[in-house]
Amino acid sequence: MKPKEAPIARPPHPLLSRDLIARTALGLIDRDGSDGASVRRIAANLGVNPTSLYNHVPNRAAIIEDVRAIVSANIDSRPLRETSWENGLRTWARSYRSAFAGHPRAIPLLMTTRSSTPVLMAQYEDFAVAAEAVGWTSTQVLPLLTAFESFILGSVLDMSGPAVVFDPTGQEEQFPRFAAAFSSLEHEDPNDPVASRAFELGLAMLISSARPEHYDAR
Amino acid sequence: MKPKEAPIARPPHPLLSRDLIARTALGLIDRDGSDGASVRRIAANLGVNPTSLYNHVPNRAAIIEDVRAIVSANIDSRPLRETSWENGLRTWARSYRSAFAGHPRAIPLLMTTRSSTPVLMAQYEDFAVAAEAVGWTSTQVLPLLTAFESFILGSVLDMSGPAVVFDPTGQEEQFPRFAAAFSSLEHEDPNDPVASRAFELGLAMLISSARPEHYDAR
Repeated sequence: MKPKEAPIARPPHPLLSRDLIARTALGLIDRDGSDGASVRRIAANLGVNPTSLYNHVPNRAAIIEDVRAIVSANIDSRPLRETSWENGLRTWARSYRSAFAGHPRAIPLLMTTRSSTPVLMAQYEDFAVAAEAVGWTSTQVLPLLTAFESFILGSVLDMSGPAVVFDPTGQEEQFPRFAAAFSSLEHEDPNDPVASRAFELGLAMLISSARPEHYDAR
Repeated sequence: MKPKEAPIARPPHPLLSRDLIARTALGLIDRDGSDGASVRRIAANLGVNPTSLYNHVPNRAAIIEDVRAIVSANIDSRPLRETSWENGLRTWARSYRSAFAGHPRAIPLLMTTRSSTPVLMAQYEDFAVAAEAVGWTSTQVLPLLTAFESFILGSVLDMSGPAVVFDPTGQEEQFPRFAAAFSSLEHEDPNDPVASRAFELGLAMLISSARPEHYDAR
C-alpha cells in the first residue's frame, strides 16, 4: 500500500479553525484579561506557529470581533420587536447581563474596540426600531442604547468583584447610616447580597423612564 | 570638618513616601492596567528595592486603597446633604464620572477589590442619609448606590473607548434604522458624539425614578 492511500490519521489536536482561534482567545481573556489575547499567546496556547493563525483569520482585530460575536450571540433582542417596549427592554437587558456574566474580563477590551459584526448590528437594529416606535428620535437612539449598555456592563463588572465591595466595619460611629445599610445585608443571600438586587433596581428605574416623555431632561 | 557635620545633601529623587508610592501605582495602572500595580513594578519605577516600600505601606492591598482614595477625593458628595435629592444626585454623579474619567483603567481593579477607606465611607454616609430622607429603606441603600455606581463607571469605560464603538457602515440595507441613527451622529461633536449625551440621558432617567414611589418595581 502506498503512503498516499493510507487512511487519513485523526489529528492529535482539534483542527485549527477560525472558531477554535476565537474560543481560545476568549479563554485567555477570561483568565488573563485583555492582554491575554495577543496573537503570540493564542498561537502558543494552540501549539502552533503565530503565522498559522493568519491562514484562518486576517488579524487580531478580526479575532476580537469573533470573540465579541461569540459572547453577544447569547443576547436576545427579539423581545424588543415582539413584545411591549418595557418588556422587551427587560428581557434584552437581562440576557445581555447573562451573556457577559461569565466573561467580565472581556468587557474593557470589547468596550474599547470598534465593531461592525452583523450579530450585534442586527440586535441594535431591533433596539432602534423599538425605540423609535415609542417616540425616540433617530438622534437619540445611540445615546439611549449606550446608556443601557453602560449600566448593564457596569453591573457585570460589579458582580464580578467581591459580594460586597465597601465595608464600614469598625467605622460605625462616624458612618452610622451606611453601617446600618451594610449590616442589613446579613439577611440577604450571602453569595449575592447586592449585585442582582442592584441590577434589577437600576433596570426598573431606567425602564420606568424609558419613554421620551417619562424623564426630566435637566 | 567631620563628615557627620556636613549639611544634609538634597536627595537626587523625591523622598519615598506613602503618597508617592500611591501616585506611582496610579500612573502605572493608567498606563498598563491592573497588572501595572505590582509591588515589584512600583519599586522598579521608583528606582528602589521592593522591600523599601514596606517601610511606608504594609502591603499591596493598602497601596490599592491609597489609589482609590486619591481618585475618589474628587467625588463631591456634599450636595447630597445640602440640596434636594435630585440635584444632589446630579452633582455627585457628575463629579464621580469626572473623578474617574482620567483613570478608566483603574476601574476594573477598584471594582473588584474590597475597600473601607474613610474618604469613601464618608461619601456613602452622605448618600445613605439622603436616600433615607426620601423614603428608601436601609435595606435598599446599597442596591441603589450600586445601581448608580454601575451606571457611572460603565459610562466612564464607554467614554474611554473610541468615540463610536459600533459602526454599521456598509450594512445600511440590512440595518436601516440603526444606520440612520449612526449617520445622525455627523451633526454631533466629533470628539464626543455619544458618550456625554448617553451619560446625561441615563443619569436623567435614573434620577427621574430615584424615589421609591417613582419606578415600576417589576
